[in-house]
Amino acid sequence: MLSDIPSETPPPDLAALAEDHYFNANPPPKDLDKHIKLAKEFIDFHAAAGRRLVLVTSGGTTVPLDAEKQTVRFIDNFSAGTRGATSAEYFLEAGYAVLFLHRQFSLLPFSRHYTHATDCFLDFLQEGPNNSVVARDEYAAKMLGVLRKYRDARDRNMLLVLPFVSISDYLHELRAIAHLMQPLGPRGLLYLAAAVSDFFIPPDRMAEHKIQSTDAVDSVKKNSNDGRGVRTPSVEEEETFDNFDSSPAVPRSKRLVIDLDPVPKFLKNLVEGWSPQGMIVSFKLETDPSILVRKAKYSLDRYQHHLVIGNLLSTRKWEVVFVSPGSKDRWIRVPFNKNGPDGAPLDTEKDEPLDPKSLPEGDPPIEIESLIIPAVQELHTKYIQSYGEKKEQA
Amino acid sequence: MLSDIPSETPPPDLAALAEDHYFNANPPPKDLDKHIKLAKEFIDFHAAAGRRLVLVTSGGTTVPLDAEKQTVRFIDNFSAGTRGATSAEYFLEAGYAVLFLHRQFSLLPFSRHYTHATDCFLDFLQEGPNNSVVARDEYAAKMLGVLRKYRDARDRNMLLVLPFVSISDYLHELRAIAHLMQPLGPRGLLYLAAAVSDFFIPPDRMAEHKIQSTDAVDSVKKNSNDGRGVRTPSVEEEETFDNFDSSPAVPRSKRLVIDLDPVPKFLKNLVEGWSPQGMIVSFKLETDPSILVRKAKYSLDRYQHHLVIGNLLSTRKWEVVFVSPGSKDRWIRVPFNKNGPDGAPLDTEKDEPLDPKSLPEGDPPIEIESLIIPAVQELHTKYIQSYGEKKEQA
Repeated sequence: MLSDIPSETPPPDLAALAEDHYFNANPPPKDLDKHIKLAKEFIDFHAAAGRRLVLVTSGGTTVPLDAEKQTVRFIDNFSAGTRGATSAEYFLEAGYAVLFLHRQFSLLPFSRHYTHATDCFLDFLQEGPNNSVVARDEYAAKMLGVLRKYRDARDRNMLLVLPFVSISDYLHELRAIAHLMQPLGPRGLLYLAAAVSDFFIPPDRMAEHKIQSTDAVDSVKKNSNDGRGVRTPSVEEEETFDNFDSSPAVPRSKRLVIDLDPVPKFLKNLVEGWSPQGMIVSFKLETDPSILVRKAKYSLDRYQHHLVIGNLLSTRKWEVVFVSPGSKDRWIRVPFNKNGPDGAPLDTEKDEPLDPKSLPEGDPPIEIESLIIPAVQELHTKYIQSYGEKKEQA
Repeated sequence: MLSDIPSETPPPDLAALAEDHYFNANPPPKDLDKHIKLAKEFIDFHAAAGRRLVLVTSGGTTVPLDAEKQTVRFIDNFSAGTRGATSAEYFLEAGYAVLFLHRQFSLLPFSRHYTHATDCFLDFLQEGPNNSVVARDEYAAKMLGVLRKYRDARDRNMLLVLPFVSISDYLHELRAIAHLMQPLGPRGLLYLAAAVSDFFIPPDRMAEHKIQSTDAVDSVKKNSNDGRGVRTPSVEEEETFDNFDSSPAVPRSKRLVIDLDPVPKFLKNLVEGWSPQGMIVSFKLETDPSILVRKAKYSLDRYQHHLVIGNLLSTRKWEVVFVSPGSKDRWIRVPFNKNGPDGAPLDTEKDEPLDPKSLPEGDPPIEIESLIIPAVQELHTKYIQSYGEKKEQA
């Protein structure tokens, strides 16, 4: 099926060249050195203890459309960070140390139960005796459970949380952390749940100021964005244009055209160079059920890593598919019964995506990450074992 | 200076036509009816009490790049919602009822002190006696103050919080709420602090599925996006293209080009049709100091509303400029003294933007909204008085 797709690897020096080019052209986030220091301490601590450690990436990355320090507009990938934040909790439960690399302000493990709720988090609190602030009675039991798990993870130094914002922040952090994880050998796991942008504007093509959309300034300031990533309208036809003339008759010159380059795919660099011993899990999020598995397989074939978890936007809380080398695709599903306790159970063993219409309304009764993480852990155990065997053979 | 810019109003039927076109082509958010019901109850309650009510809009709007229900990528305007959330608290303090229309997950009044902190909000809590959860001692006093103000606002029905996500959600909500505010007459205040997108992709030009950036599918599925807002590469040159070839040599066909139309400027419709009696305050956020005041004046001249608050991204927590009809520009600044208590105070009466380098590092000692809101309130008082006079004259 995939045999007609060319899968030759570019010569290694070309990949290295592309890497050098990207990382030189896109400056690192300002906190990178601080993060590296924190990550190194955390990783070395757990490597010394012989513990498994997972890097969980989470949330979407942004593509700034304006110059670095004055970003007021960007392209974003939708991701509240639910998959990553939830997975992190179950990894902790499974005994992993968790380095949680997440988009700033996306969901965090534990606090996720309160922060992105429709309610304001203050609604969970009330005034207690002696000028204290306490959890409201009806929330106290759950909040205590969450708080205890959180404090336990912190107190035992099992959780390190680091933020990023842009795609280039993310790639700089990922590369640095993957390198730092090398002392973990095969006990290092990279669980790449962040929604990474596919396209970006190279910095040398970015406009210096906020994109001007109205006409006030055009008349006093000539626009000269030629050849940049973002082109704004010329000042011609100023008099005839009015913003009330929406489509279909908007003059071509009043449109905004954004011209983006593909983000280099560094997964191969990650697999071959940054983390040659760690187990690497990537995600494929699609909207079209007919291409999901094919795209997951293609990704695995191309990057030669260890597991692709495929999921569809509409059913991602109910099912995912594990695609890994040399194994049959494995669908993992939250058990459900649309018609309640009395109805006939639907077939959750199906070997292809479920019809979203066949699912019950609302959220699943359990978090699917409670099934995903033990399944990943099992594969990771096999990976560590086979790694030891390979080493013995060599 | 602005005399050569045509400022004629389009004939009213043209503005109405554009409005009809936009609101018909862009479907309302699914919760609009629910929000209208809540807003109507809230507004009517305060209108009956003769109270002032402010609509505060806050946070950025998104422009979906994919089809409505499957949005995984969008253009966003940067705004955590600090200005709006902070202003809302000071409006409550000034006795206003506050309808807070905000971007989902942006900062909220009161909870803003905890949710977007670098720390996880659980770090503010600890386990108390008898399985309770309590605020940590060092945070308890402040949290109690915040909680009391929040509870007071809620208990007296002074705060209604409604969310939006996309630019079309925002415009639908704004139009509906402005109409509902008409019974307030001049006591209604619209404080438009949301960062509204300038460009969008009309729904009829949006691609149906997630933009495909890799080449796996191109070879099996012909791309036919012609004439749509988002064009992805054709399948030609598949074999010769590799994602590692970043710029400068990316083949033209592998770039992503996003072609956006301007969002119709509905501020005039708001001023003339949706809210003919309310006082309307808009914001101008710029990065270039040399055009700030000019753009603010142009906006006021064009839309004939009541106040433009201009601010620069780099100094927005330190100074803003009030531009209103028939008044001298008024700069509002947090008093500061860069060299500490002993240094000579700098001139905060300057009639032009401050040099960001002249400002102390870190956050200002007070929130500038504590100065902005009383100044707006004063203008609003005058507005209500002059409105009464006009009415008497008529």
